[in-house]
Amino acid sequence: MNADANGGPVDQRSVRRHNLALVMRQVAELGPRSRATIAAETGLNKTTVSSLVGELIERRLFQETTIENPGAVGRPGRKVQLSGDGVAGVGLEVDEGQLAALATDLTGRTRFSESVSLDTWASGPEDVIQQLAALARKALSALSAQMLIPAGVTVALPGRVDITRGTLVNPNLGWEGVPVADLLRRHLDHPPFPLRIDNDANLGALGELWHGHGRAGLRDFVYLHGKGTMGIGAGIIVDSRIFRGTQGFSGEIGHVVVSRRGPLCTCGNRGCLAAVAGALALLRTAKIPVAKVELSGIDSPLELLKERARTGNLDATRALTETARVLSLALISAVNLLNPEAIVLGGWLAGLSEWLVPVVQRELNARAFAARWWECPVVTSGLQGSAPLFGATALSLHEALTDPGSIELSQAVTVG
Amino acid sequence: MNADANGGPVDQRSVRRHNLALVMRQVAELGPRSRATIAAETGLNKTTVSSLVGELIERRLFQETTIENPGAVGRPGRKVQLSGDGVAGVGLEVDEGQLAALATDLTGRTRFSESVSLDTWASGPEDVIQQLAALARKALSALSAQMLIPAGVTVALPGRVDITRGTLVNPNLGWEGVPVADLLRRHLDHPPFPLRIDNDANLGALGELWHGHGRAGLRDFVYLHGKGTMGIGAGIIVDSRIFRGTQGFSGEIGHVVVSRRGPLCTCGNRGCLAAVAGALALLRTAKIPVAKVELSGIDSPLELLKERARTGNLDATRALTETARVLSLALISAVNLLNPEAIVLGGWLAGLSEWLVPVVQRELNARAFAARWWECPVVTSGLQGSAPLFGATALSLHEALTDPGSIELSQAVTVG
Repeated sequence: MNADANGGPVDQRSVRRHNLALVMRQVAELGPRSRATIAAETGLNKTTVSSLVGELIERRLFQETTIENPGAVGRPGRKVQLSGDGVAGVGLEVDEGQLAALATDLTGRTRFSESVSLDTWASGPEDVIQQLAALARKALSALSAQMLIPAGVTVALPGRVDITRGTLVNPNLGWEGVPVADLLRRHLDHPPFPLRIDNDANLGALGELWHGHGRAGLRDFVYLHGKGTMGIGAGIIVDSRIFRGTQGFSGEIGHVVVSRRGPLCTCGNRGCLAAVAGALALLRTAKIPVAKVELSGIDSPLELLKERARTGNLDATRALTETARVLSLALISAVNLLNPEAIVLGGWLAGLSEWLVPVVQRELNARAFAARWWECPVVTSGLQGSAPLFGATALSLHEALTDPGSIELSQAVTVG
Repeated sequence: MNADANGGPVDQRSVRRHNLALVMRQVAELGPRSRATIAAETGLNKTTVSSLVGELIERRLFQETTIENPGAVGRPGRKVQLSGDGVAGVGLEVDEGQLAALATDLTGRTRFSESVSLDTWASGPEDVIQQLAALARKALSALSAQMLIPAGVTVALPGRVDITRGTLVNPNLGWEGVPVADLLRRHLDHPPFPLRIDNDANLGALGELWHGHGRAGLRDFVYLHGKGTMGIGAGIIVDSRIFRGTQGFSGEIGHVVVSRRGPLCTCGNRGCLAAVAGALALLRTAKIPVAKVELSGIDSPLELLKERARTGNLDATRALTETARVLSLALISAVNLLNPEAIVLGGWLAGLSEWLVPVVQRELNARAFAARWWECPVVTSGLQGSAPLFGATALSLHEALTDPGSIELSQAVTVG
């Protein structure tokens, strides 16, 4: 009699799928190992392990390691490892000043990386999606040339993403329910692999989980993503999974009210964190002019802010301190409600961490309710603003890694 | 080959335990049914179901229903149902002006209910716990007299509860890390059943889940609990489970900052929701004097507030509107971060819902980020302030209902 945790008895096929995942996880998390080791670790018998490993090799997810000890004879001593030559995940990102693409294989090796400048504020959805599709085709062609099979494409988008419908609402860009996923699928001639869209802060949190602080064991955290002129979003990781809320609108920390009678926000409310402590507000407080052309990218005025702060310019340092204090107000709410293990600053917030972290940490220690008993550390993302792109790429590979029996990878794909 | 969702293969004993839970759930959620029906619904074979049902009857968790159709012969047609004569759960609650106890059996019938007045502000922890133990003994004796076996005791406490260590910190009461669970266990001569303590807002949320709006299908909500002179706490239910955070300090919405330069709070911070919109602040704004003696119970001044508001007293209605607006600020943060299905007002907030709900709903609709696409309804708890006590009682019975194979119920218990 078989049973699964959700209730009903399970059949042989789902047992095999479960065990494929079990073997995959063992090798993905613990590194190359022999079939005998896998059998000992999982409690599965050796014949079953051999059959499962065989299927994973056939699916080009595993490969035999090169022989370490040429004197040894026979298969049992040989180890298997993740194959870099089978599948690759593609991540795409829409930012205010550019589009970016990244593809990596199962071993984490970069197989394609490119970005193109684009004024996403001035361009309409159709234009942006057309250029995004062109970039995706280029990535897919590059994978095809390397004999890699795409496991999926994931697009990181700023704003409210409906992951079920594949639509995006972004008041800053003036996008109202644009069916990004469908449009992109059409542009790519309805590819056979999953094509997903997701919020950039959520993907940033997943990037941080799988490639950043999560690697050192962080499992419950709020990833705070500063992006573009107005955007501040959060991705919430609970028990190593993204917490989406009922409709998928969780993590909208940019619209937490930090000042009841504060300035109007593009969302229609007053005193939102994004309106008070977004990059535009920060630069204004620091008296750094933001030319209209620079609205398409916030990097150079932020670099100027850093330079001035380093030379002790008072407008710059005061603006940073004030921004840090306002960020703290929203983070106190988040810490009081969610009791995370840590806060991770990402996007442009990471670039300003030398000024932001000490103030935010001090404020949290002084003012978060549980801080008397436990400090919630504020740490900086080491992913150089690429956390969403890393997360998107990793999400495209996630099913291959966690449920290898669920996906069809056998077909050769040629797109472009 | 057997497999469970967490990785390793499972053994026969855990399969049986799983299947006991499966059969229990079928009857607990869907009502009385025959062994044949259970077999058909679960996919388990009839012999197995008979054996499992037999064990549940032996454990006094199930009983045969009375014969509906006396003409029918043999056992197969007989139905089994939850037994009200086996186990009972005990809930206790420490409030500002009183201690309360409730015990119910597996069918939800009340088997004991009593409350005693006690000025918990003036009494020290030892005194409160001694009186709580006396009340618990009384409840356990009552169960014993009814031949019921206690499945557990759960205590709802105001403040920061460390559920792992069983300790309570409450700055309002001046309790600093009091080992409530251990002290109570000692007073009860180390009873054989689980004795737990938990935060009252968390238990209120569970009470609402199992006995309130959760019965109508609500699975993701923030339960906002107004309690005593200063307390406002939240219990967060995600996917029908309590969300506790990393250390169990989640839901401290009373210490979300709603006014950056607002009044000092007992937690040491400024402008916390509890300090600005707690019962004491509300009554002061309404110009209702709160005598020192009334600090031991907030019900009568709140009744006076209601009376005045009903007769159109401007101080009263303005204070209620202002409190509702401030509550909204904290709830906008909670809705933006967590995207719950609904907000449930409980405790004294429920008693004032006719004034609070319209304002809070309007503010959320106007100002929560996702409100343009989806309204987060604000509803009132129907549990008359008893949600934490219902939750505590139900939690004491929860293991018997969800994992009947995990608990030892055979021994006769006599306490007191």
